[in-house]
Amino acid sequence: MIKVGIIGATGYAGGELVRLLLGHKGVEIKWYGSKSHIDKKYSDVFQNMFRIVEDYCMDANFEKLAGEVDVIFTATPQGYLSGILTEKILDKVKIIDLSADYRFKDVKVYEQWYQIEHKTPQLINEAVYGLCEINREKIKNARLVANPGCYTTCSILTIYPLVKAGLIDKHSIIIDAKSGASGAGRGATLQNLYCEVNENMKAYGVATHRHTPEIEEQLGYAADGKVVLNFTPHLVPMNRGILTTAYANLQKDASYEDIKEVYDKYYKNEPFIRGLEKGIFPQTKWVQASNYVDMGFKIDPRTNRIIVIGVLDNIVKGAAGQAVQNMNIMFGIDEKTGLLQPPMYI
Amino acid sequence: MIKVGIIGATGYAGGELVRLLLGHKGVEIKWYGSKSHIDKKYSDVFQNMFRIVEDYCMDANFEKLAGEVDVIFTATPQGYLSGILTEKILDKVKIIDLSADYRFKDVKVYEQWYQIEHKTPQLINEAVYGLCEINREKIKNARLVANPGCYTTCSILTIYPLVKAGLIDKHSIIIDAKSGASGAGRGATLQNLYCEVNENMKAYGVATHRHTPEIEEQLGYAADGKVVLNFTPHLVPMNRGILTTAYANLQKDASYEDIKEVYDKYYKNEPFIRGLEKGIFPQTKWVQASNYVDMGFKIDPRTNRIIVIGVLDNIVKGAAGQAVQNMNIMFGIDEKTGLLQPPMYI
Amino acid sequence: MIKVGIIGATGYAGGELVRLLLGHKGVEIKWYGSKSHIDKKYSDVFQNMFRIVEDYCMDANFEKLAGEVDVIFTATPQGYLSGILTEKILDKVKIIDLSADYRFKDVKVYEQWYQIEHKTPQLINEAVYGLCEINREKIKNARLVANPGCYTTCSILTIYPLVKAGLIDKHSIIIDAKSGASGAGRGATLQNLYCEVNENMKAYGVATHRHTPEIEEQLGYAADGKVVLNFTPHLVPMNRGILTTAYANLQKDASYEDIKEVYDKYYKNEPFIRGLEKGIFPQTKWVQASNYVDMGFKIDPRTNRIIVIGVLDNIVKGAAGQAVQNMNIMFGIDEKTGLLQPPMYI
Amino acid sequence: MIKVGIIGATGYAGGELVRLLLGHKGVEIKWYGSKSHIDKKYSDVFQNMFRIVEDYCMDANFEKLAGEVDVIFTATPQGYLSGILTEKILDKVKIIDLSADYRFKDVKVYEQWYQIEHKTPQLINEAVYGLCEINREKIKNARLVANPGCYTTCSILTIYPLVKAGLIDKHSIIIDAKSGASGAGRGATLQNLYCEVNENMKAYGVATHRHTPEIEEQLGYAADGKVVLNFTPHLVPMNRGILTTAYANLQKDASYEDIKEVYDKYYKNEPFIRGLEKGIFPQTKWVQASNYVDMGFKIDPRTNRIIVIGVLDNIVKGAAGQAVQNMNIMFGIDEKTGLLQPPMYI
Repeated sequence: MIKVGIIGATGYAGGELVRLLLGHKGVEIKWYGSKSHIDKKYSDVFQNMFRIVEDYCMDANFEKLAGEVDVIFTATPQGYLSGILTEKILDKVKIIDLSADYRFKDVKVYEQWYQIEHKTPQLINEAVYGLCEINREKIKNARLVANPGCYTTCSILTIYPLVKAGLIDKHSIIIDAKSGASGAGRGATLQNLYCEVNENMKAYGVATHRHTPEIEEQLGYAADGKVVLNFTPHLVPMNRGILTTAYANLQKDASYEDIKEVYDKYYKNEPFIRGLEKGIFPQTKWVQASNYVDMGFKIDPRTNRIIVIGVLDNIVKGAAGQAVQNMNIMFGIDEKTGLLQPPMYI
Repeated sequence: MIKVGIIGATGYAGGELVRLLLGHKGVEIKWYGSKSHIDKKYSDVFQNMFRIVEDYCMDANFEKLAGEVDVIFTATPQGYLSGILTEKILDKVKIIDLSADYRFKDVKVYEQWYQIEHKTPQLINEAVYGLCEINREKIKNARLVANPGCYTTCSILTIYPLVKAGLIDKHSIIIDAKSGASGAGRGATLQNLYCEVNENMKAYGVATHRHTPEIEEQLGYAADGKVVLNFTPHLVPMNRGILTTAYANLQKDASYEDIKEVYDKYYKNEPFIRGLEKGIFPQTKWVQASNYVDMGFKIDPRTNRIIVIGVLDNIVKGAAGQAVQNMNIMFGIDEKTGLLQPPMYI
Repeated sequence: MIKVGIIGATGYAGGELVRLLLGHKGVEIKWYGSKSHIDKKYSDVFQNMFRIVEDYCMDANFEKLAGEVDVIFTATPQGYLSGILTEKILDKVKIIDLSADYRFKDVKVYEQWYQIEHKTPQLINEAVYGLCEINREKIKNARLVANPGCYTTCSILTIYPLVKAGLIDKHSIIIDAKSGASGAGRGATLQNLYCEVNENMKAYGVATHRHTPEIEEQLGYAADGKVVLNFTPHLVPMNRGILTTAYANLQKDASYEDIKEVYDKYYKNEPFIRGLEKGIFPQTKWVQASNYVDMGFKIDPRTNRIIVIGVLDNIVKGAAGQAVQNMNIMFGIDEKTGLLQPPMYI
Repeated sequence: MIKVGIIGATGYAGGELVRLLLGHKGVEIKWYGSKSHIDKKYSDVFQNMFRIVEDYCMDANFEKLAGEVDVIFTATPQGYLSGILTEKILDKVKIIDLSADYRFKDVKVYEQWYQIEHKTPQLINEAVYGLCEINREKIKNARLVANPGCYTTCSILTIYPLVKAGLIDKHSIIIDAKSGASGAGRGATLQNLYCEVNENMKAYGVATHRHTPEIEEQLGYAADGKVVLNFTPHLVPMNRGILTTAYANLQKDASYEDIKEVYDKYYKNEPFIRGLEKGIFPQTKWVQASNYVDMGFKIDPRTNRIIVIGVLDNIVKGAAGQAVQNMNIMFGIDEKTGLLQPPMYI
């Protein structure tokens, strides 16, 4: 049994982690950390867990926790983990961080886009970016995994093969992304009220969203060179789901089959990536509540562009599900454990 | 391995059955019946099942099917099963019917409320009404189970103990019910279009809804006498979930604790019924995508009425989940098998 | 031109008042009061009003305001108006209060249900309960109108004729009400977040909701005797709309036509009440964004109950629209002025 | 009084036309045409119009109708109007067509993208493309106006100044569009069911949507040369609203102020176009139920692209509202008549 502690268990990502881990036969949750609900029954915060989880919320005592569990998930605000993490803790426990603290190798990029001083830059180098399909081998031996953002997972995975294979002009990439509201978290803010989100759509963070440099860094590794792109997120009135529409200029003539072959090369055996059939484009409900990423592409001969559309569930593959997948890889168990529920169509 | 055939696998209830049975370790689905999609790949109808289900939809050949599987689920229109079922089929295979065909012991009630002639009334007597928590013992040996309606399961379970214990005036019962749109099925009708349902609420079947006599019959057994009540269903703009608000006059003074004791007597050990704590009333999201029924009640001393509020997921405990629960009971395996996923909060 | 001041112009009811008054040809808005947005441009708070409203939000200086306008609308928290209102103010200006402060004749009822000490009970007597269709004559000469609550307007209007005519047992009334989320206001609270309300339904204030005594008081006047009833509100995932389902025992046999005649007696010439045709029950979208109340009823001979279903738009007829209607009556202009927009179907 | 006939009055665009024209003081609706509801009361099809519209639906007798009204709106399927329109009819009556039949000057483009043979190509030349802000002068004297599509109105208006002024590379334009479900019309199809659209998002018509050539033709006039671009529509779970996100490479360095000046040149005095302040990006709810188009733009110095975001209400400015605006222009009355309702925030 892998003993697990969760810090930030009462947010939406934390709640989803609990839901997924309860269905994972090799895991025992030992610690439901929640600074805002200390000593409150967990099932009083998430009533769906009534009679399922009997534990109480606890404060986050990292030192103590590190001695009691095998892995800690931190679903915490930016700057939290980097403010308290130490080598000593990492000697005792594996950490999967759902915040952005260790996602960037260049600390200046982090500090510039997040406007937070990074307190433990010396640990950045050791952190592995936890995009399972790309970094599987490195994750196996990692002590500290930086779990990717929801938008970034969808954005990177859908065009990675094109970039890696040099099929597209890396200066031409535009990613137009749409997300359900759970990505904004459970904080009580005016802009997340039901009547503000319902029957409404908006773009936000136009040309300034923090997931932009994260996508650029990872695609840069694939391109073996700097990638600068446009990324525009939009808020959609639904709970779960991200859909990304990526546009890029093809470097040279390529048929559907040529492109398909490249995707197959990278993803054919991936358990959670489903390349749809020709002419089929994914819908967010096809992956709802699951760890799948579905994708489809189209070549437009009129403009010589390729359009790639991808979807995932932002709090599963975009957060908690990928975190569990990372844990499975880190502990050497079947990567799919606890993640094989079929998507919910309705 | 229990071999399963599904007739009507491409409706919403059928799709949910597939989803649940795929997560049931003791079951193998052998037959995806769908009259409207014969020879089409199942995952082309429900794209969430892409690469998960490789089978094709088949016609419903009952004779053949009965020889190949251990149990058949019929998620079919009213009148279908009763039009073709025979003793001979029942000798070979167990049947769990999600339609209303065998729910009523009095064939006249069925024919009056459904306006369909019942073709096999001789089989009605043997059918067991599959409300697991009430009829568990009878279900164990049943060959033919009439799986209850979604509204009825919620309505009956929430006030059964009150009726059984004689605590309420059985002539005073009013049930005001609200349901998400998946209960209306996947038929392409004007009234179920997105723009007709969204940002809208309506009552329907006022004083004439077919679930009324079903509730009355079952509560009549509990009351040991005829029960006539008002039942009003409403359509709510959401996919899943039913909430029932039941009102009744208390027969005599009773404290919260008195009533609680009665509920506990019947439900304390039930795995899927959660009696909430005092002052807590259930929300549909607390049971989303799960087989739970949550309930809470309040005594109003001003009017001497009790108000009981219950929720369930209409296509799980209200349809496919209860059907699986019935199957587990009929085959003597742990009743909870395949049904223990925690509810999804968002 | 009627000069208008609004206190609380940046809540949802206040915003709707502004929208309606901008389309009212006999009105000029002089004062956009908003304690939380003083000196902010009104259209920065409600961006839909960009380039339409150029004014800035102001503090609420009642003394000053009373000298500058003909009527003040207060869309403010409970206890606000009663804490500052004086005879002197009322000598100078008419007031239409959208809060509950002056809705109850018995100050003890107010203080008990709202848990607020009423600071100006001496003004209660003069206040007129602004349910236009019932109190039109009194409203004409009122200086202080207590604009009814959203649930109450729908609840009272739909069964008033039955109570007034003595057709129903006044001890048997049960009102099961459902509301969209805008009724909860624009405060940033966890329970009103999109992901908490969407795909969810719940009851709240069971047997304790503050609109209960308001309904009881008004129906008591109609019944000429004390009325005690059950009222249960529910939250529905939509922005606008209230639907009430009322149940009552008929005192004696009555045909549909008998009942219809009674409704016609009271409502036939009412411009904003639409009694639907036999067998038709109202949907909230039929009155969306309008001042109409639609209603339909059904007699259930099986239980001898009548079921009356009514709908209105909670922030129009349930708040801002009725406030404008009251203003029209108080100033002797056509009651329908500014309120004749047809409902929006989608 | 302008006498109006509507063909296709029972679809969503037709219903919105009725709603808007009822609030237009210079108009009288003489003919509610609806092939599928002949002799049915209009308010039985759209119950929101109960007691507001007393007329019955009529068949479309164009000859007769042309003699009775001043203008006919056709909210009909593609190919309908072009199949029956004649010079003789145009001699008698003005026509505003909400279908695509006369939007393209090159009949081959129409026939290729719509796969319909055009039966009256000789009338194409006289038709004026009714994008009011661009073609106002031509519309004034038109007998036949081709009312633009919803996506196209938003797409063209938001980038027209950039193209016209030569500020962007006309080969670099990408438009990523998102629409509410009412754009799909009131036909009863599986894909438009509530449970299929709700909690879901999808792209459709990828690289093949029919609005593409319409946008290209109009922008081509502005560019004075052929424009080929990518246009990708997406379906969003809401009733009303379109949001377009347009991307293009800037031809040369330009500051925010430079660009703003160009927009102001074209739109400063436009009553229905609102250029938002710097840093503000539009939300669909800001224009809900109104004829406004809101837009905001951002220059991304990192990629040298400009991102322009625009919103409109797809059935007002994207259909019925623009049709009324065209009518106003054609009849020489104030263009804003009947269209000045402020947007509804909730």
